[in-house]
Amino acid sequence: MHDRFLKACRREPVDCTPVWFMRQAGRYMKEYQAVRAKRSILEVCKTPELAAQVTLQPIERFSLDAAIIFADILLPLEPMGLSLEFVESEGPVIRNPVRDRAAVERLRVEDGEGLAYVEAAIRQARQMLAGRVPLIGFAGAPFTLASYAIEGGSSRNYVLTKQFMYREPEAWHRLMDKLARVVTGYLRRQIRAGAQAVQLFDSWVGCLSPGDYAEYVLPHVQLIFEGLKHEPVPLIHFGTGTATLLSLMKEAGGTVIGVDWRVHLDEAWKKVGYDVAVQGNLDPVVLFAPLHEIERRVEDVLTRAAGRPGHIFNLGHGILPNTPVESVAAAVDLVHKLSQR
Amino acid sequence: MHDRFLKACRREPVDCTPVWFMRQAGRYMKEYQAVRAKRSILEVCKTPELAAQVTLQPIERFSLDAAIIFADILLPLEPMGLSLEFVESEGPVIRNPVRDRAAVERLRVEDGEGLAYVEAAIRQARQMLAGRVPLIGFAGAPFTLASYAIEGGSSRNYVLTKQFMYREPEAWHRLMDKLARVVTGYLRRQIRAGAQAVQLFDSWVGCLSPGDYAEYVLPHVQLIFEGLKHEPVPLIHFGTGTATLLSLMKEAGGTVIGVDWRVHLDEAWKKVGYDVAVQGNLDPVVLFAPLHEIERRVEDVLTRAAGRPGHIFNLGHGILPNTPVESVAAAVDLVHKLSQR
Repeated sequence: MHDRFLKACRREPVDCTPVWFMRQAGRYMKEYQAVRAKRSILEVCKTPELAAQVTLQPIERFSLDAAIIFADILLPLEPMGLSLEFVESEGPVIRNPVRDRAAVERLRVEDGEGLAYVEAAIRQARQMLAGRVPLIGFAGAPFTLASYAIEGGSSRNYVLTKQFMYREPEAWHRLMDKLARVVTGYLRRQIRAGAQAVQLFDSWVGCLSPGDYAEYVLPHVQLIFEGLKHEPVPLIHFGTGTATLLSLMKEAGGTVIGVDWRVHLDEAWKKVGYDVAVQGNLDPVVLFAPLHEIERRVEDVLTRAAGRPGHIFNLGHGILPNTPVESVAAAVDLVHKLSQR
Repeated sequence: MHDRFLKACRREPVDCTPVWFMRQAGRYMKEYQAVRAKRSILEVCKTPELAAQVTLQPIERFSLDAAIIFADILLPLEPMGLSLEFVESEGPVIRNPVRDRAAVERLRVEDGEGLAYVEAAIRQARQMLAGRVPLIGFAGAPFTLASYAIEGGSSRNYVLTKQFMYREPEAWHRLMDKLARVVTGYLRRQIRAGAQAVQLFDSWVGCLSPGDYAEYVLPHVQLIFEGLKHEPVPLIHFGTGTATLLSLMKEAGGTVIGVDWRVHLDEAWKKVGYDVAVQGNLDPVVLFAPLHEIERRVEDVLTRAAGRPGHIFNLGHGILPNTPVESVAAAVDLVHKLSQR
């Protein structure tokens, strides 16, 4: 089995730097568009054959070192009692957002039956991958999930989320605790189903001050990583805009820390410490640049990683719609070529 | 004259920490809403009596230590040849965005006649203020202006802006140079008209990697501060999401560096050096919190400033719509009370 990715997660030496991209199965690929043409995101997520098929599309096309199961970070909100919809050009919408303590109390923390379709998709994808590359499972982190649950969708300034945090700290912690327990069970079941690494996406946590992160978020993320620490797989902890949160995120847990492009990789790694691996950190918009610019920037990231075992190449956030497919292919090959040892 | 603000900008000791808030004249105030009820933002900006009147509204109501002229960061784009509109709930829209080198060449760099209304507003506001508090002038910084000019409005991922930067570096630098020259002249004329400090708003520069900032932005910002260095007023250099850009922003220039809430003020000040003043850094959403939480956070910012001369209290970004007016009043008074020396 091709295990460059898992070795790097464990900070073991590898022949060249492994690479995968967040949202590597997505709208920028014609194959994906074909599957999505007549189906909603939720329909694809909930049909294990389709989710597995889409998961493998980028693996068939690029020399990627890991697959990530096709799913959405918000899926766990549905079995908790929130109505999840994806509205064209608007993104996720929750029509019954959590706005008070009573709504928090109503949220269910069940045993995971409601997400069995993700486990089925993982089993099927593992079978289809047949050991070619490892499969990553994932979940949204409590803060990011809470922000969608409270705002009812995407947000620019997270006013309702932070307001809830400041005005109803007890209800906030209760909400975060419920989310943390749901996420822990969900990730554990993904591992049982065959996920060979899991990533926690705290995509929007970078909107918080370090003080607020420490007080309102860290303990809950810690609960998740504590609950997973005996699992035999790498635990990736990811966020964006987190330059000032990195050491707190490391404290919260994870054996691999995700780093976006707003901070130099060498500085980030120094900050989190060399006892964890790091994943990142190319700006996704670089894939819109001409090839020589892509090469220059891939090289810069690799140079900053300095050949130290424990770097997984990735973007700082997901691949954007309209990213040129040739640039994705070129970036993957460049990472391998420029990091040959 | 009440000169606590100007003294702090020059890092001179003051009786207590001065405070003003970005967008202190804005939608959260009924007085402002009344003026705006029948008029567009542009109409208010272009009518010196109205702009001056709105500028003074928060001064009449709160114990603020500075006024800032009512204007918009995008105004200089109009005389350059771009059509500027403010669309309800969508924000600024530019119908003829800059998408290629030819469009950059067409942009006019004129002598400033097109913005004479801002100078008139400054003169009138100075008269109405009658020395009560100093008046701040401002402009958008080249990157932030370029992002609106290229995207045609607000943006989430700045794909078109960065794509332009990566694909057409020469045209990009030409655009930034034009914007820098326009902004330099505009700020100089604001100072001649009576602005007692000026702030450069690079609101969206935090979307860039430090490498891209150094290469594509820094030289142009440097040109502005170089061009203003003999002006006898403090020069404030502001951005958001800039934790990893702070030392580069300091290198670019400014005698006061703005700091948002994502970084602790003590760490930020250490990073930029004690030879500049700092301005910030409360999360604007804290003004939606209960009073005791506001107090705790105001105190935290002041504690981190440690009584060192050269701190101007502010939010990390503008006051948000729907911010409770009582909280604004309370925050201003708390800053003064808790920083008594």
